[in-house]
Amino acid sequence: MTNKRILVWLEWPEACFRVDAKALRFLRAAVAPGDMVRRVTSASAFLRELPRATHAIVWEFKKEWFARAPRLRVLATPAAGRELVAWRDAPAHVNVHFGAFHGEIIAESVAAFCLAWARGFFAVKPPIWPRANFGSVCYEVKGTTAVVAGYGRIGTAIGEKLSALGVTVRGFTRKNAADLPRAAKDADWFILALPSDTGTDDFLNAKLIARLPRRCVVVNVGRGNAVDEAALRAALESGRLAGAYLDVFKGEPTALNKGGAVRRGLWDGCRHLVAMPHSAAFSPRYIERCFAELKDEGLV
Amino acid sequence: MTNKRILVWLEWPEACFRVDAKALRFLRAAVAPGDMVRRVTSASAFLRELPRATHAIVWEFKKEWFARAPRLRVLATPAAGRELVAWRDAPAHVNVHFGAFHGEIIAESVAAFCLAWARGFFAVKPPIWPRANFGSVCYEVKGTTAVVAGYGRIGTAIGEKLSALGVTVRGFTRKNAADLPRAAKDADWFILALPSDTGTDDFLNAKLIARLPRRCVVVNVGRGNAVDEAALRAALESGRLAGAYLDVFKGEPTALNKGGAVRRGLWDGCRHLVAMPHSAAFSPRYIERCFAELKDEGLV
Repeated sequence: MTNKRILVWLEWPEACFRVDAKALRFLRAAVAPGDMVRRVTSASAFLRELPRATHAIVWEFKKEWFARAPRLRVLATPAAGRELVAWRDAPAHVNVHFGAFHGEIIAESVAAFCLAWARGFFAVKPPIWPRANFGSVCYEVKGTTAVVAGYGRIGTAIGEKLSALGVTVRGFTRKNAADLPRAAKDADWFILALPSDTGTDDFLNAKLIARLPRRCVVVNVGRGNAVDEAALRAALESGRLAGAYLDVFKGEPTALNKGGAVRRGLWDGCRHLVAMPHSAAFSPRYIERCFAELKDEGLV
Repeated sequence: MTNKRILVWLEWPEACFRVDAKALRFLRAAVAPGDMVRRVTSASAFLRELPRATHAIVWEFKKEWFARAPRLRVLATPAAGRELVAWRDAPAHVNVHFGAFHGEIIAESVAAFCLAWARGFFAVKPPIWPRANFGSVCYEVKGTTAVVAGYGRIGTAIGEKLSALGVTVRGFTRKNAADLPRAAKDADWFILALPSDTGTDDFLNAKLIARLPRRCVVVNVGRGNAVDEAALRAALESGRLAGAYLDVFKGEPTALNKGGAVRRGLWDGCRHLVAMPHSAAFSPRYIERCFAELKDEGLV
């Protein structure tokens, strides 16, 4: 068996998404003696090394690059979303792996929001006293009901975290999607954890919003395409829905939406909206979690 | 056995701390046929009815009022703190009961804060993009360590909630207080759930702060007296501690600090401090939880 040549190209503006010396040490300690781990920091260096690589761990891989990678057996990305790696064009002998470790981190973000929302942390503003008007804002999360649309690895992790907090959780996939509109009417939390590439555009539209109770709070930690943003904004501004936490948006200025300069979007000044910059999975252990998973799966 | 005459005087500026028609119905349904539940809304009406009452459910009871209450057998308050009811002066035949139901609610507030703090909800400010500087702010709560000072009913409920989130919890009472300074050095979260009347003034002082790691975040959901506010402010402003969530303060303008008009305090503009207006136990089910507990305990 040939020794592995593992090419690591993980650069990103956000510190937690870049491979650092500590994560590299972790990976080098995880692979077999004789295997080689090589880090590159630019596309040109990556493409120079690619012909000799047996493994590539990357954020992005273009379809035409497969022709330059005759020895490639494993192509892995930390990303859960499939937008940046041309997996459909991979030759049969290349094992393409998407990160599956995000659920626990994202579940903490969702639980954080639900608890902080219910306990009034987003409602209180200085001056905090007098507080009389604040006396009817807070409620308890235990005993509420969450409907989770998209019940794969991430949705399931969210469901487990909320269940541990005493929330009744109903998870939906394509298999039981027909039951979702009926379940929607009991949702205190309507949580989207859908991928972008399975026909999910505008999944949460005016018609589905009309099924949700007025007390319902919407959460999207999947992809921005799944929300009809004009319909959601109208529901939030009119009080038809109680609130929302969106981690993802249409046209958000991340690498998922290249060419998108920072422009205005739903995240600017919508009432009752808690907007976060696609950060639900941010973690100092992000890259190490990715490497640990590749080791556990026998991929490095 | 004589029928009960239950006098309910629960008025407060905050809606969730007032008895309403729904909670009264709950109480009337809980007591035996023939028992009487009477609600009053002023101190004068309360004192007029007090001579005939066998039970009183109140926020406040002054020492001199016992002389006007010859038939009183049960004196109950929703409050967990003992500041507003003159329990030390109660005759032996009066059973004084303090609310014991707060733990579950307060535990949600503490979990809300810890998760929301770690997941960056208090750090992100508009404009949320570009987000690069935000990439090293977020971390995971699972795997962190909490030290809880005050491990009675409320502290224990906090410990259970955090344990369910994967936090290692160490609880301290007077019995193991000698071990607390050593445990403090591992605290990601240093949580105070202490009463005010057991010698807890300035419990968290400069000396104890010096034992905490720089990454530590302080939480106080007990009473404001337990924190040396000047020492905590200095630690927060200098970066010696990472942050704090204070629900209670010295000199907070609530009924616990009568005569205190709204004035300035630590809650005004301290760096890295999340200040809340003594609201950790706010809940629409607050009064009903109190009544349910009195029923469960056989007190009404």
